[in-house]
Amino acid sequence: MSKENFWARDLGAGQRVRSTFLARDASVRNDSRGVPYLSTMLLDKTGSIDARMWGLPQELLGGIPEPGYVHVEGQTHEYRGMLQLKVERLRVLRADEVSEEDYLPVSEQDRRAMAAEVLEAGWSFRDDNLAELFGLIASDKDLWDAFCEAPAAKTMHHARLGGLLEHSLQCMRVAKSLAKLYPVNRDLLVFCAIFHDVGKVRELSWDLGGFAYTTEGRLIGHVVLGERVISDYIEQLPDFPKELALHISHILLAHQGEQQFGSPEIPKTLEAILVHFIDNMDARLGMYAESTKNVTDGGWSHHDNPLRRALYVPENPESRWNSPSEAT
Amino acid sequence: MSKENFWARDLGAGQRVRSTFLARDASVRNDSRGVPYLSTMLLDKTGSIDARMWGLPQELLGGIPEPGYVHVEGQTHEYRGMLQLKVERLRVLRADEVSEEDYLPVSEQDRRAMAAEVLEAGWSFRDDNLAELFGLIASDKDLWDAFCEAPAAKTMHHARLGGLLEHSLQCMRVAKSLAKLYPVNRDLLVFCAIFHDVGKVRELSWDLGGFAYTTEGRLIGHVVLGERVISDYIEQLPDFPKELALHISHILLAHQGEQQFGSPEIPKTLEAILVHFIDNMDARLGMYAESTKNVTDGGWSHHDNPLRRALYVPENPESRWNSPSEAT
Amino acid sequence: MSKENFWARDLGAGQRVRSTFLARDASVRNDSRGVPYLSTMLLDKTGSIDARMWGLPQELLGGIPEPGYVHVEGQTHEYRGMLQLKVERLRVLRADEVSEEDYLPVSEQDRRAMAAEVLEAGWSFRDDNLAELFGLIASDKDLWDAFCEAPAAKTMHHARLGGLLEHSLQCMRVAKSLAKLYPVNRDLLVFCAIFHDVGKVRELSWDLGGFAYTTEGRLIGHVVLGERVISDYIEQLPDFPKELALHISHILLAHQGEQQFGSPEIPKTLEAILVHFIDNMDARLGMYAESTKNVTDGGWSHHDNPLRRALYVPENPESRWNSPSEAT
Amino acid sequence: MSKENFWARDLGAGQRVRSTFLARDASVRNDSRGVPYLSTMLLDKTGSIDARMWGLPQELLGGIPEPGYVHVEGQTHEYRGMLQLKVERLRVLRADEVSEEDYLPVSEQDRRAMAAEVLEAGWSFRDDNLAELFGLIASDKDLWDAFCEAPAAKTMHHARLGGLLEHSLQCMRVAKSLAKLYPVNRDLLVFCAIFHDVGKVRELSWDLGGFAYTTEGRLIGHVVLGERVISDYIEQLPDFPKELALHISHILLAHQGEQQFGSPEIPKTLEAILVHFIDNMDARLGMYAESTKNVTDGGWSHHDNPLRRALYVPENPESRWNSPSEAT
Amino acid sequence: MSKENFWARDLGAGQRVRSTFLARDASVRNDSRGVPYLSTMLLDKTGSIDARMWGLPQELLGGIPEPGYVHVEGQTHEYRGMLQLKVERLRVLRADEVSEEDYLPVSEQDRRAMAAEVLEAGWSFRDDNLAELFGLIASDKDLWDAFCEAPAAKTMHHARLGGLLEHSLQCMRVAKSLAKLYPVNRDLLVFCAIFHDVGKVRELSWDLGGFAYTTEGRLIGHVVLGERVISDYIEQLPDFPKELALHISHILLAHQGEQQFGSPEIPKTLEAILVHFIDNMDARLGMYAESTKNVTDGGWSHHDNPLRRALYVPENPESRWNSPSEAT
Amino acid sequence: MSKENFWARDLGAGQRVRSTFLARDASVRNDSRGVPYLSTMLLDKTGSIDARMWGLPQELLGGIPEPGYVHVEGQTHEYRGMLQLKVERLRVLRADEVSEEDYLPVSEQDRRAMAAEVLEAGWSFRDDNLAELFGLIASDKDLWDAFCEAPAAKTMHHARLGGLLEHSLQCMRVAKSLAKLYPVNRDLLVFCAIFHDVGKVRELSWDLGGFAYTTEGRLIGHVVLGERVISDYIEQLPDFPKELALHISHILLAHQGEQQFGSPEIPKTLEAILVHFIDNMDARLGMYAESTKNVTDGGWSHHDNPLRRALYVPENPESRWNSPSEAT
Repeated sequence: MSKENFWARDLGAGQRVRSTFLARDASVRNDSRGVPYLSTMLLDKTGSIDARMWGLPQELLGGIPEPGYVHVEGQTHEYRGMLQLKVERLRVLRADEVSEEDYLPVSEQDRRAMAAEVLEAGWSFRDDNLAELFGLIASDKDLWDAFCEAPAAKTMHHARLGGLLEHSLQCMRVAKSLAKLYPVNRDLLVFCAIFHDVGKVRELSWDLGGFAYTTEGRLIGHVVLGERVISDYIEQLPDFPKELALHISHILLAHQGEQQFGSPEIPKTLEAILVHFIDNMDARLGMYAESTKNVTDGGWSHHDNPLRRALYVPENPESRWNSPSEAT
Repeated sequence: MSKENFWARDLGAGQRVRSTFLARDASVRNDSRGVPYLSTMLLDKTGSIDARMWGLPQELLGGIPEPGYVHVEGQTHEYRGMLQLKVERLRVLRADEVSEEDYLPVSEQDRRAMAAEVLEAGWSFRDDNLAELFGLIASDKDLWDAFCEAPAAKTMHHARLGGLLEHSLQCMRVAKSLAKLYPVNRDLLVFCAIFHDVGKVRELSWDLGGFAYTTEGRLIGHVVLGERVISDYIEQLPDFPKELALHISHILLAHQGEQQFGSPEIPKTLEAILVHFIDNMDARLGMYAESTKNVTDGGWSHHDNPLRRALYVPENPESRWNSPSEAT
Repeated sequence: MSKENFWARDLGAGQRVRSTFLARDASVRNDSRGVPYLSTMLLDKTGSIDARMWGLPQELLGGIPEPGYVHVEGQTHEYRGMLQLKVERLRVLRADEVSEEDYLPVSEQDRRAMAAEVLEAGWSFRDDNLAELFGLIASDKDLWDAFCEAPAAKTMHHARLGGLLEHSLQCMRVAKSLAKLYPVNRDLLVFCAIFHDVGKVRELSWDLGGFAYTTEGRLIGHVVLGERVISDYIEQLPDFPKELALHISHILLAHQGEQQFGSPEIPKTLEAILVHFIDNMDARLGMYAESTKNVTDGGWSHHDNPLRRALYVPENPESRWNSPSEAT
Repeated sequence: MSKENFWARDLGAGQRVRSTFLARDASVRNDSRGVPYLSTMLLDKTGSIDARMWGLPQELLGGIPEPGYVHVEGQTHEYRGMLQLKVERLRVLRADEVSEEDYLPVSEQDRRAMAAEVLEAGWSFRDDNLAELFGLIASDKDLWDAFCEAPAAKTMHHARLGGLLEHSLQCMRVAKSLAKLYPVNRDLLVFCAIFHDVGKVRELSWDLGGFAYTTEGRLIGHVVLGERVISDYIEQLPDFPKELALHISHILLAHQGEQQFGSPEIPKTLEAILVHFIDNMDARLGMYAESTKNVTDGGWSHHDNPLRRALYVPENPESRWNSPSEAT
Repeated sequence: MSKENFWARDLGAGQRVRSTFLARDASVRNDSRGVPYLSTMLLDKTGSIDARMWGLPQELLGGIPEPGYVHVEGQTHEYRGMLQLKVERLRVLRADEVSEEDYLPVSEQDRRAMAAEVLEAGWSFRDDNLAELFGLIASDKDLWDAFCEAPAAKTMHHARLGGLLEHSLQCMRVAKSLAKLYPVNRDLLVFCAIFHDVGKVRELSWDLGGFAYTTEGRLIGHVVLGERVISDYIEQLPDFPKELALHISHILLAHQGEQQFGSPEIPKTLEAILVHFIDNMDARLGMYAESTKNVTDGGWSHHDNPLRRALYVPENPESRWNSPSEAT
Repeated sequence: MSKENFWARDLGAGQRVRSTFLARDASVRNDSRGVPYLSTMLLDKTGSIDARMWGLPQELLGGIPEPGYVHVEGQTHEYRGMLQLKVERLRVLRADEVSEEDYLPVSEQDRRAMAAEVLEAGWSFRDDNLAELFGLIASDKDLWDAFCEAPAAKTMHHARLGGLLEHSLQCMRVAKSLAKLYPVNRDLLVFCAIFHDVGKVRELSWDLGGFAYTTEGRLIGHVVLGERVISDYIEQLPDFPKELALHISHILLAHQGEQQFGSPEIPKTLEAILVHFIDNMDARLGMYAESTKNVTDGGWSHHDNPLRRALYVPENPESRWNSPSEAT
């Protein structure tokens, strides 16, 4: 059964919904009148929505598989500033009744267009060494495909297929615009903004079962793995300047900003300081965006999110969060 | 005697120097041959240079006034990646022999042009409330003059006359460029980027004696003082939306990013998170710039600077640090 | 149905109980013989008691509403140093069957008497400025009523109607007695001890649904809100000394003692240091009192309380915790 | 030569001074006109004053002994809110020319009166066990004399002969007044307030050479040493209740409040929490008092003191810091 | 019914199991097909194994007693690198149907042999004072039996009967071997390695109900309690050198290494530094061993263990974790 | 002039000394009688001694070169538990009058013998892969010579020529003895104990001018540099097992134990945990040894050393610190 009609992304208040979702964090509780109800989060690859179901039939009193696929029918409404689905009918599905890839989170943006924008920036480098290095990387199909497909994290932010590309692209855009305001080595800054997290392609695995850490990822970590990936390409270029190679290694190793966050050295050059800020800023803005997705204007998110604080959405935001490419 | 010929900013290796400076951190030591020499840092309003003097006459063996004005004659050269002045003649001056304002650090940039750029941004706000508020602030001559003249800090970064304006302007530029990449309330972001540090005009005092904290600055702090300054203007605008006022207060109070750095609340909106990053990034880039001013390509700064780490200047930087306005 | 007979506060070991309570943290578990039982905490406005029920009828096997009102019948006894209720009969009630205000925690002390003691202290100030300021505040009925009704916190300590007044009064008493031992500005110390937490009236909301943070409370915080409340009254007094106003602002802003706990500046005067200690000490003693309420002599509280440690009640305490007014 | 005429404690602005002092932190610098001057701090057992001397004779150009005794003649005045002595004549003395005990810091208060007040409180205990224990301790002449003579610290606060008694007495007074406001075991609280720091008599040594740590003090520390001192007395009382002994040990061991400050366990009873607060509060108020001794109204102390912050003395303090006994 | 046939320690993949265990952390969940199953951990005194049961009979749908004794029948297999038991039949037992001591964790090693190895080391001391002190301790039957029976902790590591002896013995072995490599007082190092944790015999209680903290343990802590135990024996030896006694007290008090971990003083001698390292190293290796017991080669432990990190077992370990005595 | 007669290492109390040294931290102070004296530390490659000189001739009143070579004549004695030299005659030398290598700190141990012991251990590996890898490394003359010559640190511990070899050898010895007590992969543990700090050969530079950080050392750090050095050798061995290579990288990267100390990942295997402890323990014992070198029995070191605490040398140590090789 393929996913039809309603994607989580498209839900608004006051809609009649009939669709399939992946159910997470499901539990049966009693309401203030003593009536049992089912509480769960319903996801598909485009987003998620909180759901409640009363009038539970006998077979649902014991709860539902966790996580498990379900077909639901019901009505959306707003509750305390968060969108909610009141379920009227729910049927548990077997894994083979759905197309699992419909439920693996995936970037909303056009991966091909994103990749093209990165490639275009790379081809336009005026620094010959960086241009050559970029070409070498972009033409390694295995690496490039993984770079375009990987999530940026297991859970914290951009945890979706294509998420690494999304994050890298946005960091590149910020780098390009800051390079006009600060006296930096522009191509170096842009190059490292693009590839600072490339080690994620080896730190994480992604398949239908979900996102996980690899053994290599846990023993070495994406910071050192990423520096190795790039250094190995540089070794294929015998004339690459030694000091530039050293500088790139430093920027990649130092991008976490502090040793306690996994960088063996802290940023000691202008470009290293900037790459750290660009990465950190985009990651935190991603956490804000993802934690406030279903919050209505003037409302507050749950406290329990990667930023560990309730987040506020102003009453009259000039603009809501859109995909960055629309924002430009 | 007015300052002539040589400003610290203009010194390069291999120059013959004859000029007056303010001497700091002066002490008489012995070199490895057992010969006493004088070590000091020479400043004027444009910068500083390390100086050494051998062959000390009797009256200098006991050191020199600290801090004190001196007239020196000598030769510049490079030593371990830092520019140095070898002094041949030195005469201590009385304070009334110099124009003290020549030795108070002052922004290298044109303050009028900087102010004009800020004003222009303010006049172009499309949000009527913010436009009106900005107009009110900019037309308060006392506040505005102080805002254009104040240093941004006592020592850490932008510690010079006009430094607050320099820092505010650069934060404004970054805010404008990030507003094109993230779905924010643009005018609000730009407004708060400009005025996040406005409390410095009451936290600090600046006169010929140097920069100092005021009693109000030490008892209340620039974070709360700045929020008050803006809130007082808002109270003059009876129709100003309550929620927008609350949001501005939040952004100003939260701009230090963490409670341990003096913000009573941490950033909980998109704009508050961004203003914190913009401020922090520009401050740290300022610290880098000021700590590496006399470092040659491929050299390292002293470890003892506001970033508490030795900082590296690459061998072939594409560009050296320039005033931001030249960089745009 | 109005609450009758048994209030939580009055329960002792070996009593037959028949009353209504609010049930929290309810769950059905199995004992070491494999028999299912219900575990819950029963509250009313005077306190709480742990309860267990065996021999569950069919309709309770699935648990009870959470939180929900219940009518119980059973027997109290002591278990491992904590008072416990063994429930024999339990019936779930609808919200409209009870008077909800019976279950909202409320101070055990006479609010009118407490307010009178504070007012008396205020009227007796010998410092004319502080006396006038106090009079202005106390005669603002809206503020004063809120001050007498607000809880002092959402959960940590004095989380009950009238709790802010209780805490403020006790801090005032401590301030008065310390003013005899240390050479302080007595009236200033007493004034700030009374009003250090006045910002809570805007940080928190309290109604039948329970205690919660306001949007203003989360964006600004009670520290700055409280300083603003008092400063706004001071502005109505044109002759109020500027330096005294500054000192009051400092004491209110610094009362959390450390920046990491939300004070933008740390205490820098004798009175500011003392107000911080008085507040902190009374808050922690309140946490001790509330966490050991049902602990018998020689017993230990749970580890999970605001002080994050198991707390001990000595075997032969000279006195048990009483309401402070009885203690004087 | 015995100390005559002028004690540091009595100095005010505009006085002609002729007296002997102990000089610390002496160095010869040059002023802004290039003239060398001597800067030093002059102490005697009653306090200290900053001093400056210009017009240095040949034999003082190389500085003075450090630390060393000096006879000075000069004039006091106020400089930037701090009292200062302008020295006109200075003669270095040999140690055998002075009575060294005149220069060892010593409590300004009457040690006999302080001891009497403590003894009186002890004799009035209504708890027989604590009364007997107190009697045993007070009648051990060696311990009691040491307790009355010891400093409370090497440098931080109450670092003077009789300082431990001063601090213990003041803690006792605070304990007595708080026992009227909180439902505590009064005699236990007062007993532990008096003896919480008794381990200092073995942790520190004091003689003409100054205050120092003993080997025992460095290897075991005053927290455990103090608990041992009291436990050894308790062992002499075979009928002393075991649980009361355990409680006393806990209060003494936990009085630092946190493990990181040297308490092997944190406070877990009402009395233990209170003793920690009483000790900490009096210590910090002592630091304030000692750091602002020479600060004029409206002035600021140096930043470099045990509280690590500049401290403010209000413009119109109702009262200046006096010895606590005068304050009562 | 006495425990028969299968001990947790002996289980491997592919075995048919029929035995009794203690069930912990039991809960009924639904699998991805929506089928309910029971998940639990089964323990006996030799170890533990994760278990799953599908096809739940009616009486198990509500879960099982927690903790409770069960008789199970099923098959072992490997799942994601961890050994697991698939249960086919499960019957809940009453506590009186089992011998509870079969389910209290107990050291796998021969306690008599371990004690003999410690005694042998003690008898061979060449330092007469330490030899005499050791003899006194070892001949105090109450203390010695408790030392041989106590667990080393409530949960963290060596939390089993005989665990303290196991840990102390292994620390002794390490001390002996390091004494050959560093110039230490060998007998002192070995003595303190053996008895550094002796305070655990009073900090913890152990009986059929499990391991718990005593009131004394919570109020004083094992660090000070242990130092007291040894100091009391030393007081029985009038000729014991004072300085050696002081050194032993220091080593015992400082063995946690940092104040924040409960040591009132930090290690300041060679032997104190070493005892801290030996204790810490053996404790952490114990945590590793216990957390990876059921992990297969190339697999990862859960993240949730005392070391707070997923732990890796290499694919081809040269040796698996054995009891230390076998390892020697 | 070559260094003769007296090496710092051989000095004891009551000796007549006539030799040359390197003077550090020299300054002229006045004693308590007002008499100026020179205070300095005298070093050569074998150690250091504090020195004092009174009766300064005119040319020494201004101090001596810093650092500078001196010829001294005087008498040693003990002062407050530290050895001291009372200088009677002192002459400043030119650098070309001495053999500078006599004053660069160098290991007291026979470097050839130490290297032989490491090589012997390597040749005896039973694991073929590790044996082959070790052989490859040991036969790379450049690397091996640097490994045998490098200091282990710039200042903290083993900061002397051959210090890295000394530290690596001692870690190897500890690893070998712990491998008998814990069930580890012995050869892997020993291999990584030897080479955990190999990155120091690229992080540091050492020549007559002293020890310094390289640019590579500051930008990448010895942790990652060392992992790279070993990984590069492994890449020359095509059949080296991938998982073993990964494990080695993990151990090397994790050897600092915590991210905040520069390890990008924390130890997650038995061998990684052990290598961290072995390194840390030997480093701290080295700091103890070096900080107490001139302390007499029963005395205390200065507080200002890498362990940031005063260190105690017992009154009757069974043995004093010897070179480890003598200790075995």
